[in-house]
Amino acid sequence: MNQDYIKADHWSIIEEGFDVNQVKSSESLFSIGNGAMGQRANFEEHYSGPTFQGSYIAGVYYPDKTRVGWWKNGYPEYFAKVLNAPNWIGINVSINGEALDVFKCKKIEKFRRELNMKEGWLSRSFTATLQNSIEIEVESKRFLSLDFDEVGAIVYKVKLLNRDAQINFSPYLDNGITNEDSNWDDKFWDVLSVNHEDNQAFIVSRTMKTHFYVCTAMCSQIAINGKVLNQEKQISENINYVEFQYKNYVKKGDTISLTKFGGYTTDRNHDKKELISVAKKTLHEVSKIGFQSLLDLQKAAWAKIWEMADITIDGDVKAQQGIRFNIFQLNQTYLGKDARLNIGPKGFTGEKYGGSTYWDTEAYCIPFYLATKDQKVARNLLAYRFQQLDKAIENAEKLGFKNGAALYPMVTMNGEECHNEWEITFEEIHRNGAIAFAIYNYHRFTSDYSYIPEKGLEVLIGIARFWHQRATFSKAKNKYVILGVTGPNEYENNVNNNFYTNYIAKWCIKYTAENIELVEADYPSDFTRIMNKVKLSKAEVTQWTTVADNMYFPYSEAEQVYLQQDGFLDKELITVADLDKSQRPINQKWSWDRILRSPYIKQADTLQGFYFFEEDFTVEELERHFDFYEPFTVHESSLSPCVHSIQAAKLGRMEQAYTFYLRTSRLDLDDYNHEVHEGLHITSMAGTWMSIVEGFGGMRVKNNKLSFDPKIPKQWNAYSFKINFRNQILKVNVQKNKTHFELVGNTALDILVNDKLISIQPNTLITVKS
Amino acid sequence: MNQDYIKADHWSIIEEGFDVNQVKSSESLFSIGNGAMGQRANFEEHYSGPTFQGSYIAGVYYPDKTRVGWWKNGYPEYFAKVLNAPNWIGINVSINGEALDVFKCKKIEKFRRELNMKEGWLSRSFTATLQNSIEIEVESKRFLSLDFDEVGAIVYKVKLLNRDAQINFSPYLDNGITNEDSNWDDKFWDVLSVNHEDNQAFIVSRTMKTHFYVCTAMCSQIAINGKVLNQEKQISENINYVEFQYKNYVKKGDTISLTKFGGYTTDRNHDKKELISVAKKTLHEVSKIGFQSLLDLQKAAWAKIWEMADITIDGDVKAQQGIRFNIFQLNQTYLGKDARLNIGPKGFTGEKYGGSTYWDTEAYCIPFYLATKDQKVARNLLAYRFQQLDKAIENAEKLGFKNGAALYPMVTMNGEECHNEWEITFEEIHRNGAIAFAIYNYHRFTSDYSYIPEKGLEVLIGIARFWHQRATFSKAKNKYVILGVTGPNEYENNVNNNFYTNYIAKWCIKYTAENIELVEADYPSDFTRIMNKVKLSKAEVTQWTTVADNMYFPYSEAEQVYLQQDGFLDKELITVADLDKSQRPINQKWSWDRILRSPYIKQADTLQGFYFFEEDFTVEELERHFDFYEPFTVHESSLSPCVHSIQAAKLGRMEQAYTFYLRTSRLDLDDYNHEVHEGLHITSMAGTWMSIVEGFGGMRVKNNKLSFDPKIPKQWNAYSFKINFRNQILKVNVQKNKTHFELVGNTALDILVNDKLISIQPNTLITVKS
Repeated sequence: MNQDYIKADHWSIIEEGFDVNQVKSSESLFSIGNGAMGQRANFEEHYSGPTFQGSYIAGVYYPDKTRVGWWKNGYPEYFAKVLNAPNWIGINVSINGEALDVFKCKKIEKFRRELNMKEGWLSRSFTATLQNSIEIEVESKRFLSLDFDEVGAIVYKVKLLNRDAQINFSPYLDNGITNEDSNWDDKFWDVLSVNHEDNQAFIVSRTMKTHFYVCTAMCSQIAINGKVLNQEKQISENINYVEFQYKNYVKKGDTISLTKFGGYTTDRNHDKKELISVAKKTLHEVSKIGFQSLLDLQKAAWAKIWEMADITIDGDVKAQQGIRFNIFQLNQTYLGKDARLNIGPKGFTGEKYGGSTYWDTEAYCIPFYLATKDQKVARNLLAYRFQQLDKAIENAEKLGFKNGAALYPMVTMNGEECHNEWEITFEEIHRNGAIAFAIYNYHRFTSDYSYIPEKGLEVLIGIARFWHQRATFSKAKNKYVILGVTGPNEYENNVNNNFYTNYIAKWCIKYTAENIELVEADYPSDFTRIMNKVKLSKAEVTQWTTVADNMYFPYSEAEQVYLQQDGFLDKELITVADLDKSQRPINQKWSWDRILRSPYIKQADTLQGFYFFEEDFTVEELERHFDFYEPFTVHESSLSPCVHSIQAAKLGRMEQAYTFYLRTSRLDLDDYNHEVHEGLHITSMAGTWMSIVEGFGGMRVKNNKLSFDPKIPKQWNAYSFKINFRNQILKVNVQKNKTHFELVGNTALDILVNDKLISIQPNTLITVKS
Repeated sequence: MNQDYIKADHWSIIEEGFDVNQVKSSESLFSIGNGAMGQRANFEEHYSGPTFQGSYIAGVYYPDKTRVGWWKNGYPEYFAKVLNAPNWIGINVSINGEALDVFKCKKIEKFRRELNMKEGWLSRSFTATLQNSIEIEVESKRFLSLDFDEVGAIVYKVKLLNRDAQINFSPYLDNGITNEDSNWDDKFWDVLSVNHEDNQAFIVSRTMKTHFYVCTAMCSQIAINGKVLNQEKQISENINYVEFQYKNYVKKGDTISLTKFGGYTTDRNHDKKELISVAKKTLHEVSKIGFQSLLDLQKAAWAKIWEMADITIDGDVKAQQGIRFNIFQLNQTYLGKDARLNIGPKGFTGEKYGGSTYWDTEAYCIPFYLATKDQKVARNLLAYRFQQLDKAIENAEKLGFKNGAALYPMVTMNGEECHNEWEITFEEIHRNGAIAFAIYNYHRFTSDYSYIPEKGLEVLIGIARFWHQRATFSKAKNKYVILGVTGPNEYENNVNNNFYTNYIAKWCIKYTAENIELVEADYPSDFTRIMNKVKLSKAEVTQWTTVADNMYFPYSEAEQVYLQQDGFLDKELITVADLDKSQRPINQKWSWDRILRSPYIKQADTLQGFYFFEEDFTVEELERHFDFYEPFTVHESSLSPCVHSIQAAKLGRMEQAYTFYLRTSRLDLDDYNHEVHEGLHITSMAGTWMSIVEGFGGMRVKNNKLSFDPKIPKQWNAYSFKINFRNQILKVNVQKNKTHFELVGNTALDILVNDKLISIQPNTLITVKS
């Protein structure tokens, strides 16, 4: 944890002073992205100190060789690696022949970075004294355009402070990149051509195996004191690199600046023969617009996002900065424009967790996108799974399931499983449940039932068939059991009767059976089409529901709690509070067997079930389970604090809820787990949003109505958020003793506040006292 | 399974007829070794068909990069790879310019291989019609000398059948070898020098990382019709290869032969500067002795081994061939001369399972070596673990244990763990128990207590400390439990309270506590030395025994059996007989999760406990457990049938015992598991020996006396074996209705036969009727 390194600010992430040990962490925190591409905040000029270079293109991946000890039947052939893409941001700078390298300067002062979240740009400035004693002031600003999502823009300025000097700027494209996580010095790119024309340059390359074609492009222009120079440049190139060289003799006090536009065109969006011509055209267009006007467009585009997604917090700058950082990064990662994409757990900020799609999307991200975007964005996320249903069925077949049972992969890029640990790949099957739950959640929130007959029901049937086949009958228990699973708490492997898994399995079957009846009644032609396709009989559904109705749930009469799994009470039940601090985090200090046999819980597991299915349990039951499990929870998953914050708030434990809120919202900013250098925790950021809206705000959909139970941490004066509910916007502003509601729309809306019905007229402020 | 491919024979393994699809399997089956080195039965001449080239030097290994999906704390840094060693057997043959290549000849006839187990040599003969229509007869014979264990010898003969021709013989050394299991085209050897002098050649090379220095050497001599030629040869060499070329014009009907001696000297046994000079001297010496006299020495040496180790079976050639093959391969692999070596599960016949030492040594091999060799061989095997005690303590420390607790590695070369699967590496901890049990077994058999105060007690204390720390107290059960283990049945992972593990843990603690008292009483100076070293207090021992005395064992009242682990009865208990045959072997047909949640047992687990600790259970209890568990046992481990054969014999189920016997003894010869091409199952071969001696013969040590309960399968007329018991030899010959005992020694021996005391005088035949 590192609380002082990022300055508190309402709208920006700010670092002041240069610290060589923070470079990799800052590269993560100051990452920028526009949904189509993204990059770590690497310096433009060469940096010889420790750095983690990363640029990423959405949807471009590589099926890496899997590394396992002993191959196990059913393992997928590959691991989808998030590929480091060619570098287009690079600008080599030399001053009187000395390369500018922050790591090697005599002195670096006034170093400042800012990630301006309101306007969507990154800047950096510092003064440097070079080894040759020349003093300079450097400023750079860059952004990835939301309007032209294949390009980004940079202005890079150097001012001479103490003497005249020869300044060379060499903007370049570099395809000679590798992956940080490549242990084997593998290359993943074949370069096909290196070209240049006028002030533009292009490298066309192709990923190995997956054969994504990418044109990396740039154009550049030089100016002194703002006056554009139309000077000759030198060009240097090799097999995977091209560089322009601008050489100028600059006077003391003058500023030389380079404007560089660059980015990627790929055959995911264009014919592969046209990658250069599209890039050319786009570079011409943005050059014509110019850096400043493009930046103005950027500010406007971000203003539009914030207009809907912003959450304000009054009286607590760190909390405010935290939630905005989370919302900003989510929007940098996924904007919902491209239905083939999904939300990778590290977004465009690192390589860890290869692959793009986890159950995080359904369990954590859908509610955020539902409430802050047009509802078709969430529908696209659901449809992503529908498109991959055939692969989920194939995946289940590999594991011995049949008759159209579907097991969605733990990690995927294109529907194929690409994770290779038996205890996760084969056993962390609860993920299937979250995919069904998201369909329920979408319908509950939007009231748009059409998705279910069109697409959702087929997904539900595949999932129900899986659970039916996966459960087995225990004569000893006279119940159906689900053996050998890993629950959401990955600190338990191959356990029997994980409560959460059994519960969601039962729920999936029941929900699917209900929807089969609804579709049969209300959408007969869809019903006929689907039944013809999946060959489902009433008898089969009866078999499913027999399993669901007789599902076993481990329960302790002594403790009056459901057990996380069979045998949980045999553990040495020493709470986290009684665990020596030197032993934490246990995932860094302990061997795996020790973690497994301990009672420690990585993230909400039984409590995740209480979150999804809260209507099935009383508040007293929630409290009992919270009091039983939370003391054993180490929260070593980024997905843990948000669910605990929501439940603590529900239980009225506002101090605890606030602590969990800070932990989730500032997980990366304060680097709780000492790993921010690897990249940000993007998907858990949606959980931060939930912990305000669902936790403090108490928002639910109950009986087809939006419902609130507003609470406020004592540290705050007020907070506000907006909900896009069924195409109207509800603004909610919670203060110490009252809550304002205001509806932007055309139709009156009935909502529940503290379980009381309140009718809100359009464009009228309603205040509810608490 | 392939029952007809090896001809039944009492003393030899014989293959007749050339089958390209059997080449790799035969390369395994006809492997030769002399304890110091070994090689698969690769052809001397070039073979372009599918082949698995393998030569191995005992103790020379390579720490390969580990391949894992997600690194887990505590994983070892490397996986010890059994390294393919330089090839010294190669002889390129060309006839009128056409390379002899069995894969490409027009016709191969009269192809015959023989592995003569009585005399310890391998031969091969065939006639071939080459593409150039020349017909030849080829004969080769080779062996690895037991007397000079750094060399082997080959005579290779070609006779021209239909015309005169130019025949070139090119014996060579080749260091340009790789490993079959090298997925990454890695090289593991650095060649330091290639030399030749007179008719000798040498390649000195060094393994990467481990830096073993090896000189691979050869000398050769050519003869026509038995008459040695002192002709000039040509020499060809490159960076990792050297070849002599002998060119001769040979007349139809004449036979040209090449005698080649070759092998390795290594810095495991010599100063690395003297590897060439030692090799030179040895080659001179064996050349002077000559092929035929060296072969006579070989026959004599094998006769000496067989004199003690042979088991005869009258009336069942296949059973006879099976047991001799097992005894022969065990002696090829490990002779007990070098205390730094151990018994790798594939011996010198393949690369699988990297590393040399598994619990197989203690659980299966020790009894064989105890009874068929001087007892210092078994003592060396025990001392191997004593020498590695420090590393076992380090290994336990890595996993969070302390205070001198020792966890021996699952797989090792030098005491360091080199297996990387958490469910095995960290959890298959029962291996520690077998190491303690072997100490008990050694003392029980030999009555040599001195090992315990000298070395064994320190090992026992380390192991007892481990079990004490590994068990935890369950309040729910009011007992000590051992959570998160993998038992001998590796088709269960991360289970709680595996009966076998809990039982051996309890036994280890009790046995250690007993021996602490014995050593204190009888070996006070050893006691003081050890206590000073390990800092053990009486109070600590009391803590251990509290755990042992209150150990939990899962038990089913309904079934009246101990459960293999908690929750076993929740499985779908469908027996193997009711499982569709198309689903087997399940380890090839099923994904890992499906195997884990099934009731199927890979090898004896609960029944392994009943084997080790049979005195603790009644025959009725054994029968009940056998009847409960065997029907779920798929015997997909080579270590399974032998234990089941022994127990079936004990229960008087001779037909079943015989079936299991054939399965264990002919596992490789009949290729039950379709994997003999990967190499032989060496360690399980000791189990075959046990299934005759302990199973049919019923041999035990009871109350300090050898005890027998002889039974005979109805397919046999008689069988006989010898036991080296406390430096006297007892010959046992079991017939249909009687058993002969004969003692070779000086002192009368009291034995038990069917629990009756019988005194045997030296050199007197005693017959006991049954």
